[in-house]
Amino acid sequence: MPRKSKKKQRKGAVKERKEKVISSLQNFGEKTYDQIVSGEFPWTNIPSRSINNIFYDEKLRQYILGDRSVKRTARNIRHIRPLTQLIWIGMFADELSRQSKTSTLRDVYYSAQAYEMSFTDQQESDNLITDLETVIGYSREDFNVFPEERSAIFGDLTVEYTLPGYEGNKLNLTSHPDGMMIGPALTSSELVNCKADKVIAIEKGGLFTRFIEEKVHTKHKALLIHTAGQAPRATRGFLKRLNRELKLPVYIFTDGDPWGMHIAMVIISGSANAAHLRDLNTPDAKWFGVWATDIVDYKLPSDQLTELDVKRLHELKKDPRYEGKLWKKEIDTFIKINKKAEQEAFSRYGLTYIVDEYLPAKLEIAESL
Amino acid sequence: MPRKSKKKQRKGAVKERKEKVISSLQNFGEKTYDQIVSGEFPWTNIPSRSINNIFYDEKLRQYILGDRSVKRTARNIRHIRPLTQLIWIGMFADELSRQSKTSTLRDVYYSAQAYEMSFTDQQESDNLITDLETVIGYSREDFNVFPEERSAIFGDLTVEYTLPGYEGNKLNLTSHPDGMMIGPALTSSELVNCKADKVIAIEKGGLFTRFIEEKVHTKHKALLIHTAGQAPRATRGFLKRLNRELKLPVYIFTDGDPWGMHIAMVIISGSANAAHLRDLNTPDAKWFGVWATDIVDYKLPSDQLTELDVKRLHELKKDPRYEGKLWKKEIDTFIKINKKAEQEAFSRYGLTYIVDEYLPAKLEIAESL
Repeated sequence: MPRKSKKKQRKGAVKERKEKVISSLQNFGEKTYDQIVSGEFPWTNIPSRSINNIFYDEKLRQYILGDRSVKRTARNIRHIRPLTQLIWIGMFADELSRQSKTSTLRDVYYSAQAYEMSFTDQQESDNLITDLETVIGYSREDFNVFPEERSAIFGDLTVEYTLPGYEGNKLNLTSHPDGMMIGPALTSSELVNCKADKVIAIEKGGLFTRFIEEKVHTKHKALLIHTAGQAPRATRGFLKRLNRELKLPVYIFTDGDPWGMHIAMVIISGSANAAHLRDLNTPDAKWFGVWATDIVDYKLPSDQLTELDVKRLHELKKDPRYEGKLWKKEIDTFIKINKKAEQEAFSRYGLTYIVDEYLPAKLEIAESL
Repeated sequence: MPRKSKKKQRKGAVKERKEKVISSLQNFGEKTYDQIVSGEFPWTNIPSRSINNIFYDEKLRQYILGDRSVKRTARNIRHIRPLTQLIWIGMFADELSRQSKTSTLRDVYYSAQAYEMSFTDQQESDNLITDLETVIGYSREDFNVFPEERSAIFGDLTVEYTLPGYEGNKLNLTSHPDGMMIGPALTSSELVNCKADKVIAIEKGGLFTRFIEEKVHTKHKALLIHTAGQAPRATRGFLKRLNRELKLPVYIFTDGDPWGMHIAMVIISGSANAAHLRDLNTPDAKWFGVWATDIVDYKLPSDQLTELDVKRLHELKKDPRYEGKLWKKEIDTFIKINKKAEQEAFSRYGLTYIVDEYLPAKLEIAESL
């Protein structure tokens, strides 16, 4: 019985969240309406996203906003335009959410013209969308504004779609061996059955395909995710769901250079730009390679660091997200050996070495971190 | 009965092609072996890919190579290295194909080290892979060397996988509403049942998702393909298969600028770089928008052309692939109005205008082109 109720609880996660998002949007609208009806100039408080209000929270292991906020009010003539724009974005987000239609940042910019709502350029509408995120506390993907980029997933997870027209359809994500795109349909689906016991996120597409071919999903009971470089926000949110709802540990496998390291870090600790949001990062995710020390230990073919690589490593040294022992050691090793290596470098030992030898060895280490 | 035999013929298309590729590779190996056994210095003829041997073929509507070829022979001490490398690549391609393992350009470069085969850099191994394509007349995707990039497909097509471990599995490509990746599994699958009567290739991911949401696949009986910018070669090859095996007309929908126009053109007429290959372009595919004349007719929100855009348009004017009346008119209109517009610009008339109004109007025009 407890198992069943747990499953039932899990099944409603998406629906419940969607209701919360719509009710936040509705609250924002109602508040504005009430202000007008009661003869007040409409206004709203927006937590400040300025650099001196962004702090790293050691406990949450992510950036958060401090207590400062900005009051935007129609009483101030300079606020009338951005406040009106914000209310319009809220209305548009509400329409998208209720009708289960999706959009993109660029698309919202053009859509405004259908309502004779004016934005000087896309930058202006992008900023207002971030304002709305800050006000309601949900990310734009929650109100159906998606990025252009898509990454992919493969593995023994059965999802049940909630998308209109597909409601109740189920699909096992091993059905298509090239991988399924992670878009609005997947991120809005319920996770109904999972045989995997871990997630491996992979930077490069070639490696993602190799892992499928070499059956990492069955040998290691893993869900495989192709991040396609920096993981899109929708994918970071989905990784978080896999970790929280299914209790799956998440392991990240990138190129061995400061950029690969940072792909892992953004999945783990998020970005300063998203300090106003939760649920986009997975603090317990682990980066298992390619480490700088792997370049030495596995005698990998490598390239010399560029000036830009070195500059980036010194930046990361000062970044509060890189406080941990592992990170410090790897940053120092990169600088010391002055080398970087790509995931494909393991092919020097044959195409399957990475799956047969390296992966099991590193998973064992990562599990103990 | 004729229907059944047609289906049977279609069902074997992938297997047949794979056998041809392996037998080409085998022929290349046997020829070399025979040369050595008969006491000859091994050699091979490679059609020249130099600029003065590339011609535009009006009839095939693509670039082709002329009659010049280069003899690469072990008798010449300077040829020993590239000839040995070419033979190694042939051997490696044969291994990949027989074992149904896939690789990438970068991966091949590193794999060479497992065989103590030396390449100075990846550029050198990439060139040798192109040499092998030229010698055997098949593209690297045919011998399982795939690009990193992936695009996606959605629509009422049922495929049967031939990939080891998935042989005989069937999947309908409407199963996952975010789209399925186009990779080795899809391109090596047989096309067993298709309810669609056309293909629409779409440049932008946001629009691809909108088309799925607004059910273009059922309303217009279309397979939808997301090219994600310039379509990867594997996707161009798959478009060709849909056109040739299933006799589906292909329509291409891009941004209204010289770069979008060229995305369409490469699908239609291929690139000069691939003059040594067939089966990567679809001469009968049609570009249906966003045309320069659409910017005027639909009063689309637009941006001014940049200097680079204008320079590119003047280049295209001299390109033999852009000989047709439609192309000339659109290039001239772009230059005249000095404007460009994105696919998302139609959202100024509401999110569904593009599907409800623009698409049917343009499909009708495109069918008559």
